[in-house]
Amino acid sequence: MSVYLHDIPLPQAQARLREALQNSDLWRVLGTETIALDEEAVGRVIAEPIWAKTSSPHYHASAMDGFAVRAVATHGALPSKPLILHVGPEAEYVDTGDPLPEWANAVIPVENVESLDKDGQITKDIPLPNSIRIRSSVTPWSHVRPLGEDIVATQLVLPAGHVLRAVDLGAIAAAGYQEFKVARRPKVAIIPTGTELVPIGSELKAGDVLEYNSIVLAAQIKTMGGEPTRLPITQDDFDLICERVLEAAQNQDLILLNAGSSAGAEDFSAQVVEKLGTLLVHGVAVRPGHPVILGLIDRQSSIENRKSNEEIASGTNTPPNNMIPIIGVPGYPVSAALTIDIFVEPLIAKWLGRRPKELQIETATLTRKLVSPAGDDDYIRVVLGKVGDRLLAAPLSRGAGVITSLVQADGLALIPSGIQGVDAGEKIQVHLYRSKSEIEKTILVIGSHDLALDLMAQFLADHERRLVSANVGSQGGLVALRRGEAHLAGSHLLDIKTGEYNISYIRQYIPNIPVKVIALIRREQGLIVKKGNPKGIKSLGDLANPKVQFVNRQRGAGTRVLLDYHLNLMTIPPNSIVGYSEEEYTHLGVAAAVASGRADCGLGIAAAAQALDLDFIPLFQERYDLVIPKAHAGSDLLVPVFRLLVDSAFRVAVSQLRGYDVSVMGTIILED
Amino acid sequence: MSVYLHDIPLPQAQARLREALQNSDLWRVLGTETIALDEEAVGRVIAEPIWAKTSSPHYHASAMDGFAVRAVATHGALPSKPLILHVGPEAEYVDTGDPLPEWANAVIPVENVESLDKDGQITKDIPLPNSIRIRSSVTPWSHVRPLGEDIVATQLVLPAGHVLRAVDLGAIAAAGYQEFKVARRPKVAIIPTGTELVPIGSELKAGDVLEYNSIVLAAQIKTMGGEPTRLPITQDDFDLICERVLEAAQNQDLILLNAGSSAGAEDFSAQVVEKLGTLLVHGVAVRPGHPVILGLIDRQSSIENRKSNEEIASGTNTPPNNMIPIIGVPGYPVSAALTIDIFVEPLIAKWLGRRPKELQIETATLTRKLVSPAGDDDYIRVVLGKVGDRLLAAPLSRGAGVITSLVQADGLALIPSGIQGVDAGEKIQVHLYRSKSEIEKTILVIGSHDLALDLMAQFLADHERRLVSANVGSQGGLVALRRGEAHLAGSHLLDIKTGEYNISYIRQYIPNIPVKVIALIRREQGLIVKKGNPKGIKSLGDLANPKVQFVNRQRGAGTRVLLDYHLNLMTIPPNSIVGYSEEEYTHLGVAAAVASGRADCGLGIAAAAQALDLDFIPLFQERYDLVIPKAHAGSDLLVPVFRLLVDSAFRVAVSQLRGYDVSVMGTIILED
Repeated sequence: MSVYLHDIPLPQAQARLREALQNSDLWRVLGTETIALDEEAVGRVIAEPIWAKTSSPHYHASAMDGFAVRAVATHGALPSKPLILHVGPEAEYVDTGDPLPEWANAVIPVENVESLDKDGQITKDIPLPNSIRIRSSVTPWSHVRPLGEDIVATQLVLPAGHVLRAVDLGAIAAAGYQEFKVARRPKVAIIPTGTELVPIGSELKAGDVLEYNSIVLAAQIKTMGGEPTRLPITQDDFDLICERVLEAAQNQDLILLNAGSSAGAEDFSAQVVEKLGTLLVHGVAVRPGHPVILGLIDRQSSIENRKSNEEIASGTNTPPNNMIPIIGVPGYPVSAALTIDIFVEPLIAKWLGRRPKELQIETATLTRKLVSPAGDDDYIRVVLGKVGDRLLAAPLSRGAGVITSLVQADGLALIPSGIQGVDAGEKIQVHLYRSKSEIEKTILVIGSHDLALDLMAQFLADHERRLVSANVGSQGGLVALRRGEAHLAGSHLLDIKTGEYNISYIRQYIPNIPVKVIALIRREQGLIVKKGNPKGIKSLGDLANPKVQFVNRQRGAGTRVLLDYHLNLMTIPPNSIVGYSEEEYTHLGVAAAVASGRADCGLGIAAAAQALDLDFIPLFQERYDLVIPKAHAGSDLLVPVFRLLVDSAFRVAVSQLRGYDVSVMGTIILED
Repeated sequence: MSVYLHDIPLPQAQARLREALQNSDLWRVLGTETIALDEEAVGRVIAEPIWAKTSSPHYHASAMDGFAVRAVATHGALPSKPLILHVGPEAEYVDTGDPLPEWANAVIPVENVESLDKDGQITKDIPLPNSIRIRSSVTPWSHVRPLGEDIVATQLVLPAGHVLRAVDLGAIAAAGYQEFKVARRPKVAIIPTGTELVPIGSELKAGDVLEYNSIVLAAQIKTMGGEPTRLPITQDDFDLICERVLEAAQNQDLILLNAGSSAGAEDFSAQVVEKLGTLLVHGVAVRPGHPVILGLIDRQSSIENRKSNEEIASGTNTPPNNMIPIIGVPGYPVSAALTIDIFVEPLIAKWLGRRPKELQIETATLTRKLVSPAGDDDYIRVVLGKVGDRLLAAPLSRGAGVITSLVQADGLALIPSGIQGVDAGEKIQVHLYRSKSEIEKTILVIGSHDLALDLMAQFLADHERRLVSANVGSQGGLVALRRGEAHLAGSHLLDIKTGEYNISYIRQYIPNIPVKVIALIRREQGLIVKKGNPKGIKSLGDLANPKVQFVNRQRGAGTRVLLDYHLNLMTIPPNSIVGYSEEEYTHLGVAAAVASGRADCGLGIAAAAQALDLDFIPLFQERYDLVIPKAHAGSDLLVPVFRLLVDSAFRVAVSQLRGYDVSVMGTIILED
């Protein structure tokens, strides 16, 4: 087992890699290639400055449909004192783009002349009337595009290092090019390793891990302008990995070895790099992603043993440079993706000669306290939304295995090493993954989770809105509204005294904020149990059975309130229930706990049971409302939400969820 | 000649097209296709919501390398009171990602246990010691990634309409997909028409126009997610164009006819659309780009005459929809590109089911008064730079033929119809083409143009700076510095009284701003004349010859001051010089005027003559300085500029310009 994993600070790790590449003459544009000037050139990086070969226009061109004239011949023309110019010697019809006759130096637009026939009568015989009558003079070069108006031969049109956009291709063409040089795409091999890995599409058994990091990594490389090659899954076998790495080293520019970069029993990456080259870094103080390996592989390190003498003699194994960088990428998907952004993007940028990609940085208010290891650069995925005037950053799951946290992230906040945490309400800097305008079209929903919100997210996507929901339970949602952290909250809080939903809680938690409360749905709550209900659970009374393992919702959740209400009615003490303190944050979380065998039952909605093919024992019906501060209810942002509440397609979709009743949808429960 | 070009307001034009497409059932996602989940999927648009098929993880997985245990068995363990768990029944080694044994519900990381051998001695025999000693308890599910931590089966992973990024592919894979549905790429035919058009790479004669619009349009379509097809150049021939359009209509989704969209003698587009379908719009009140045509082509409009009965019988000419939209795109490259952005991008977005692209909008201060036609939506290309705290927008050339204005543009400002102009210093809204961070790395240089600035732009591109220069002459540059509109100015203003450069002008124009003045180069000024000097020009004295056509620089230009100084010394009255009032704004502009025959000579630098293969009569040497307000001289932004002044590669490159002397480079002339 390797024991030398030792985290070093990120800047130090980056510097070591850069220096090693400089020493191997690999810190530069790797190579160039000539490509044709066509639409495929978009995104390529210009390798040599584009100096104009020709001028554009390359002659004096008429800028209008009209008559070319000598400006001096028009002097004195006035509305009251028109001048007549004879077509031929004094005026010549030109279309837009036509070259000016040698003798002419101005154009009179066709709409500013009267065309005359031989008898001096107005005629429609353009382009060849006998003469034209003009009623004002023109200055030299008016309505003419002079030679070089756009581009003068020899001027710099575009610098090397420029990433080509569509319009650039026009300028390069106008400058006289038909082909030009761009940086060649760096070739990147991606080697997935791990005995537990199975290709996507496999039937899964416990312990199998879907190998999809290589797809994400390849897509990242492609997006950055590199040329990825995904190699087959290699087992956790030191010799096999060495062989695969050396093979890739022969014709690639960079090797990504994923994973085995940590220090576990089956983590061979560091040893592989040590054997075949130089291990520069093993461990970087970043979270997620610290078990990173940086190194160089010597292409010829044991090639002698593997290639015949003939091949050596023919020179096929003498690459221009013997060293090739290798990066040991951590296995968790979030760590893997961030490692590519942190270490590979600057490298690809250098190899292409372009500037590294920079994300826009904005200041946002953190909604939840964050604790961070003092020694690490800690990258936090956040959801962003503008509520009122404030840009809010709500942290997402910090689990390195939670790829959906990267999918949902609107940005990345960095808590630098040395800082141990940031309090809720403090300002943080966020690197944006989305444009600000997209973020400003984000509706932040907080509170209790309901499947109708997922459907709403899908429907809103068609209406230029993005719905992002954070599940903190009904009470948590109301508290968040009070703090101005969301546009609306989903709530199903039963008032134990009145049997009424939500209103008393709203008065208690957000007394000073006028709100609009609209019913979304009624839904069944009941016990989610295993298929076939093996423990024969029938009612809440069975929860007191010590053989029944329960899974609860978190404090503040409407479902938890409902449970406590009925337990109280039935005088069942919570501490008599095994698993009462096990908390899940969503209905689907509860269902997943039951499906996996972690629990025998939990209180939740029918749809969640249906989703995971579980059985459901209906017990109660409850109403689920949307609580919307009036300040947001009138905003443009929420217009599509109100439209959805009366949209028949949306109603049909929601009503198809099991146990859902949409008859209340859109009913105004309260309007302050 | 068509006469019905009649501009209608942009929203009306857009609405007409949308309604016509709705009526033809073409205002929707055109179609879907199933693609494999791999890196090629980046940029595609999801056609159906991705609901998770499997959970991720799909089993309870260890989150660490360590020992799986029952949490309850660890209760009571303390540093002072360790507990021993036997490997096998009570503890089982698991690697990260391994499934938890059925009986276990927590993991203790390997670094938190002491491994013991049979005799109770500490051993390194991991993973199979005899027992482990622990000194603290764990709670249930600690260091475990429970089933569904990332994704719970049936949850919405990504909505339809989402444009795929690299990380999304990981989430789709984790949700159990191996392939999925995306919107098919809309097929767009681009038909360049015009007898004057020649393909790129052709030898050019006067009147030839390089056909590169189709390349730009194709690249735009590709960038938007469409599938462009560039058809060969079609002559200005009504029947030929009809034939080409009908051919394209058979298997495409959209036709772009470029150009012939105006109302000139050879503009057939409107008639073609009328003959083959429905002309919806001819003329839109936008600048640049007003001669736009919007219409529908009937795929079968005269197909009967062209296809045999067998083909009709076999159904090959019965497309699902008989109508296909056509857009007549104006011929000027800037108009063409903007037409695609305005009319085609929203259409492609609709056809793909994604949101239309939106550029970020920022407020900037306009540097120069703009006059705009009252009835038009007027799109102004601007260069942006941050000088001090202000984001400045400097308008670029408004010529529709100046493609470099789009290349240089950092953004697009819209002066809406109804507004006739905007004053300098007023705020305008700008749609950004570049990221704000890129704009903040832009160095705005204003004043006199010098070829060394082009070289500086190229060198700075390697140092994360973009140099943007506006040529307004030396005095104009100083005035701009006073207004805070640039980071530095290039100036070569001779003081007629003292023979000194720049300082007296700086004191006059920017008396209250402390500056640093640094010499850049010394360069020869002289007369640029035609190759072989056919008029035998030898000195300024020859300018008074009425047979010599002169071209001047604009008022305020250092070269103009130099000319006036020497004319005065030689007592040559300016009004004796033919062409004294013809103004060009750059040295290359003067050279281009001479090269094209518009003038016989002009005063300028040797490098400009050399660039266009002209002759040069050296007359004087002058110094060209950089004038830098001290507020900017100390900024990070300009550090790379100061480095360049002592960079030997830069000096060598500049010294190779004809007539350039770099010995003064970097000399401090003045430091307030």
